[in-house]
Amino acid sequence: MSYMELFDKDVMEEEFSSTELLHVLSDKTSFPIDTERKVFRKKEQIAIENEVHDYIYFIQSGICGVWKNEHINNFIGENDIIGFNEILGNEPSFTSVIALTDIITWRFSKEQVMSKLMYSQEGAFYLYQYMKLVNANLLQKQTLQTEETKKQLLLTLTYLGQQYGEENQHHIILPKIFTKKIISNYLGMTRQHMTYLCKDFESNGIFETDTNQFILNKDNITISY
Amino acid sequence: MSYMELFDKDVMEEEFSSTELLHVLSDKTSFPIDTERKVFRKKEQIAIENEVHDYIYFIQSGICGVWKNEHINNFIGENDIIGFNEILGNEPSFTSVIALTDIITWRFSKEQVMSKLMYSQEGAFYLYQYMKLVNANLLQKQTLQTEETKKQLLLTLTYLGQQYGEENQHHIILPKIFTKKIISNYLGMTRQHMTYLCKDFESNGIFETDTNQFILNKDNITISY
Repeated sequence: MSYMELFDKDVMEEEFSSTELLHVLSDKTSFPIDTERKVFRKKEQIAIENEVHDYIYFIQSGICGVWKNEHINNFIGENDIIGFNEILGNEPSFTSVIALTDIITWRFSKEQVMSKLMYSQEGAFYLYQYMKLVNANLLQKQTLQTEETKKQLLLTLTYLGQQYGEENQHHIILPKIFTKKIISNYLGMTRQHMTYLCKDFESNGIFETDTNQFILNKDNITISY
Repeated sequence: MSYMELFDKDVMEEEFSSTELLHVLSDKTSFPIDTERKVFRKKEQIAIENEVHDYIYFIQSGICGVWKNEHINNFIGENDIIGFNEILGNEPSFTSVIALTDIITWRFSKEQVMSKLMYSQEGAFYLYQYMKLVNANLLQKQTLQTEETKKQLLLTLTYLGQQYGEENQHHIILPKIFTKKIISNYLGMTRQHMTYLCKDFESNGIFETDTNQFILNKDNITISY
C-alpha cells in the first residue's frame, strides 16, 4: 500500500477494519497463528480491570458492557475487539468487560498477533485504525454529554436500538438487557432523573408504555440528530 | 525493533514519544522533509472544526484549548501535536484548536510526514502510540466525570496547575488563562455551580481568596487522588 492510499479515509476504514484484521489473523497460508472459538455466558467476565490479559477476542455475536469502577462507559458487540487497547506494553486492562448476553468470540494470543502483524509493514496500521475508532467513539460520547439530558437519553437509545436492537417502519426496539438501571449508569444520571425523563417521553408518545423494554415510536421523535 | 520489545510499555512510550517523532521528522540525514517554525498569537485559531488541514504542528511552548461546538474538551501544550488525529484519510478536523497563550510550533506537511513514516517499518507505531495517549486522556476524563463535582474540580485544577502552572512547597498556581469561565466550560458545569464550589473551597482554605487566578493551598487539600 502506498502512502497516498493512506490519505483516503474509505480505503483506511475498509483495509484496516476489524473484520479485515480477523481475516488476516485467521489466514493460515502465511505465518499461521492459533485461533480458538470461545463462548462466554451472560454475566461472565471476559476482561478484568487492572489485570494483565494474554488474549484478544473478536466478538462475533452478543453484547458486552465495558466497565470502569462501578460505571459502564461503553457497550461493544459484533466486530468489536476486546483487549486490543492493551495489546502492546503488556499493560493491565483499563476496563472490565462483562457479557450482557451470551457471547461468541474468536480468541488470539496477543503475542502471536503482534508477531504476525510485525511480519508485515502494514501491521501497525490495524492498531492505529482501531485506536482511532475507539477515540472517535469516546469523543462522540464526550460531545453527547454536553447536550441536555433529554436529548442525551433519546440519542443514546436510538443509537443502541439501531446498533443492537430491531427497527421497523414505526418502532426502534431495544434488547431487554438495556434496562433503565444500565442506561442511567451509562449516562451518569440518577435513577430518579431517568424515571422522570421516561415518564415524560411516555406521556409524549415517544416511548411505548407498559413494556419491560425500551420501544421508541419513530413517528413521535422530533428531536434532530 | 523486535516485536518482543513492543511488549515493554516503557520502551514504547520512550521510543515512540512525540519528542522522538519530532526528532525523526527533523532529521535531515535520511529522507529530509520541510520543517517550519510557526508562531501563533493568543486567540488565533490553529485548526478549525470540520475543515481539512494540510499540516501538523508540534507545540514547543504555550497552551491551547481544544473545542468541539461551544465546549472545550481538552487543553494541550508542550510536546503535544495538533492535527495528528486526522493525519490519514484526509479527514476534516473533529475539533478546533485555539491558542490560549502565544504558541511556538514546528510545522510539517501531513503528506511529507506520512511519506517519511512509511519509509520505515516503525513509522506507523508513532501514529498508534499517539492515538493511545489520546485514548488514555479521553478515558481519564470520562472516569473523572463519574466523580462528584467537588472532586472533579479539585483534581482538574491540580492537574492543570502541575502540567501548565507553577508549584512550590505550599502552593499550586495556575496560569491566569484558566479562568472560572474556561474551567466550568471544560467540566460542563454551570457558572453558578462553579461559583458555589469556589466559595466553598475558599472558606475551607483550599483556594487562596481575592486573587484573579486559581491558587491552591497544598496543605489543605485532603482529597485523595
